[in-house]
Parts: sequence; C-alpha cells; structure tokens
Amino acid sequence: MAITMYDLAGAEPERRFSPFCWRAKMALAHKGLEVETVPWRFTEKDKLPKPNEGRVPVIVDGDRVVHDSTAIAEYLEARYPDRASLFGGESGRRLTQFVIDWTETVVQPGLIRLVVLDIWRHAAAQDRDYFRRSREERFGTSLEAAVADREARLPAFRESLSPLRRTVERQPFVAGAAPAYADYAVFGAFQWARAISDFELLAGDDPVRAWRSRMLDAFGGLARRAPAYGA
Amino acid sequence: MAITMYDLAGAEPERRFSPFCWRAKMALAHKGLEVETVPWRFTEKDKLPKPNEGRVPVIVDGDRVVHDSTAIAEYLEARYPDRASLFGGESGRRLTQFVIDWTETVVQPGLIRLVVLDIWRHAAAQDRDYFRRSREERFGTSLEAAVADREARLPAFRESLSPLRRTVERQPFVAGAAPAYADYAVFGAFQWARAISDFELLAGDDPVRAWRSRMLDAFGGLARRAPAYGA
Repeated sequence: MAITMYDLAGAEPERRFSPFCWRAKMALAHKGLEVETVPWRFTEKDKLPKPNEGRVPVIVDGDRVVHDSTAIAEYLEARYPDRASLFGGESGRRLTQFVIDWTETVVQPGLIRLVVLDIWRHAAAQDRDYFRRSREERFGTSLEAAVADREARLPAFRESLSPLRRTVERQPFVAGAAPAYADYAVFGAFQWARAISDFELLAGDDPVRAWRSRMLDAFGGLARRAPAYGA
Repeated sequence: MAITMYDLAGAEPERRFSPFCWRAKMALAHKGLEVETVPWRFTEKDKLPKPNEGRVPVIVDGDRVVHDSTAIAEYLEARYPDRASLFGGESGRRLTQFVIDWTETVVQPGLIRLVVLDIWRHAAAQDRDYFRRSREERFGTSLEAAVADREARLPAFRESLSPLRRTVERQPFVAGAAPAYADYAVFGAFQWARAISDFELLAGDDPVRAWRSRMLDAFGGLARRAPAYGA
C-alpha cells in the first residue's frame, strides 16, 4: 500500500512549494517507496492525521503517522533499512544534521527574503490572509517591502552558498557520488523557490546551478516535472 | 617509529598556530599515533621534506611523505583502517568535505579579519616581513587597518556560526557522540585563533563555546595544554 503524504499546495493543487515536503518526497523516492500526496493548505490544520504539529509534511504508512521532515527521514531509514541508505550510517546521519542546520540558518532565511511575495501570490485564496499576516509579523514589514531590494541582496545570497559551491565543484553531490538526504535538505530550499518564483537565484555558470540541475534529474526528473519556473 | 610532523611555529617554538596543522594533530591523536613535531616557519620552505607545496602540515611516516591536511587525513584513514575512523565511511568522508568547505569559506575568512595582527605579533622574526607583505597584499590594507573594526565585526562573525551552533546544541560533536575529522576541521580554526590572540570570539553562554571546551578536553587536553590564550 502506498504511503500517503500531506503536501503543501497553493491555489493550483499540483504546485507544491514546501521545502520540508520536498525533502520528504525526495527521501521517499530515494527509498523507492510509492507515495500518494494529498494537497494541503496552511489553514487546514484540522485535516491532518494525528499526531501532528499543524505543519506538513505528515506521512501515513499503514497505521503509522509520522510528522516533521527529519523525523520522517529517520523513520524511513529505520523502517526500510534494506533500501538505499539516506545517511550512510550513524556518522553520516550526524554530519547530515550539520547540512540541515546550514540549510535552515543560511539558505532558507536568505531565500525567504527573495521570494516571500511570490509565495503569497501562489497561495490558495483561503491561505493568503494568514500567510501575509504571519510573515509580515515575522519580518516587521510588508511582504512588498521585504522583497523590494532583492536584486541588491542577491550577491550576498549567492556568496552565502560558498560552502556548497566548493563542495559540488569537487564531488557531484553533497553526499558524494550519489545524492542522499544531505542533498535533499538543501535541494528542498531551491525547489521551494523555483516552484513559486521566476526570480533566478543562480548565475548560469554557478556550480551550484549544475548541482541543482543534477538534482532536478534525479528519480526520473521527479522535481523537474513538477510545476515550477525556470531552470 | 613515531610519525614526524612539520608544524607552524612562531617566535616561541612551542606556540603552534596553523589551523591546518591542528587538524592534522587532532587526526593523529584520534588514530592513537605517536607524533614528533618539528617547529617550522613560513620562510623555511627549503627545510620541508619533499614532495611539498611550501606549506605545512607535512608528515613523514616511515618512508612516506604526505602534505596537505586533507591528504594527511585520507592517508591516515587508509593506512590505519583498524583504528577509530576519522570519517565514518565513504558517506561520512564526503559529508565531512562540506564541513571543511564551510570552515574554509566562512569560519577562517571571518577569523583572519579578527586576529591577523595578532598572528604577525607572534610570528618568528624571520617571518614577520613576509607575513605582513603577503597578507597586506591579500587584504589591500595594512594589518592594523584590517583588524581596526574587529569589535564591530564580531556580531556578524558570531552570527556566521549559526549552523555549528544549532548542530552542537543538539549533539555533543559535529560528528555525533564523539568527535571526528569534521570537528577537527572546525576546531583547527578556533585553536589557531586562541593560540595567538586574547580576543574573545565567543560569548560565555554560546553553545559553540561549550563545544570548543569539549574539543579542548579531547585526547587528555592535547589542545588545552598547548600555549594559547583564554578559554
């Protein structure tokens, strides 16, 4: 029986733009597991299977409900140990945590200030007020003002990717010759951005862009086929 | 027979302040290998065993000469596979590369602009002109001007450590329950700074400081016992 996954969607049900859901979808594909996604909106907290924390991804695997992208990755690794490893052992799991922490303290905060207005534009009608209010409170400014100087902030964002750039100049993926969960953690952020924004984040000759392209090709083009903009 | 390692020293032969040499010394300790260090100065290029690239660390293990800290770590892992692993397998090796790349693109460039004048003050007499000239050329400014605003730059440096902070809040070491090469790569930068500077980089309650303290305790206080300043 396929695993069910609640996946953040916007006004268009097939446009999926949660970085954390993309991590989980890539992890499920890595394990070769079939998944049926259920489009979910920010304001549909009561539609999630329990337990949950009011956020996606949440997966249902038989009688197990697992929420939180990291918990889902650990669940899949423990439940399906004979399939390709997401981490490459306990050391790999802990080192992957650093990549997750870098993604969440550097990449995602940098990205949100470039594309938050585009997220709002793609949000479902019922989510728009909630999304605007909660994000404007977080930024202390309107969404329009938050992204007004994004062209000026782009060089610093690109510079902040230096560690990733240096790594993927040397090896095809963060995890080595083949992608693994460390790659999915970072890629989720880029796929989130390209799902809802045509603002080009990466220069044409950036090794990070070549890596992103390799990630888009993974699993038969799983992420490339999904509704999104640009390269 | 003990391994010989050429180790950057200053005016005081026992004060050792190369971040790359500290990586190698911690890696040798991790493998439980005996090492005899030879103090070496920037301008003693002709005193290094061949092959070399005019930089330290260089190790001599029997009839093998290995230079470059990453090459040394890989050599030790391959040559002494039955001793504690530095990486935790091939995945761990590749994920460790990302930590190295983060250290070299974020931590070390941030640190040098805080302590470069202190390095010059501790350099051997014969190295001082070379060091000042090469670094002033790199920065396009005097060493004094390079560090003049270091108090103002300290908050941004501390902020740049966010990924490490988040990781070591959750787990004792970057590599997990015990330190491994990923930790040595980052720690080398901090030990470099504290070897030559009393400028306190980390707030008293910073989880990164607690991690640094755990690293100072490793291997019977190997790094803590070395000539250095402060915490």
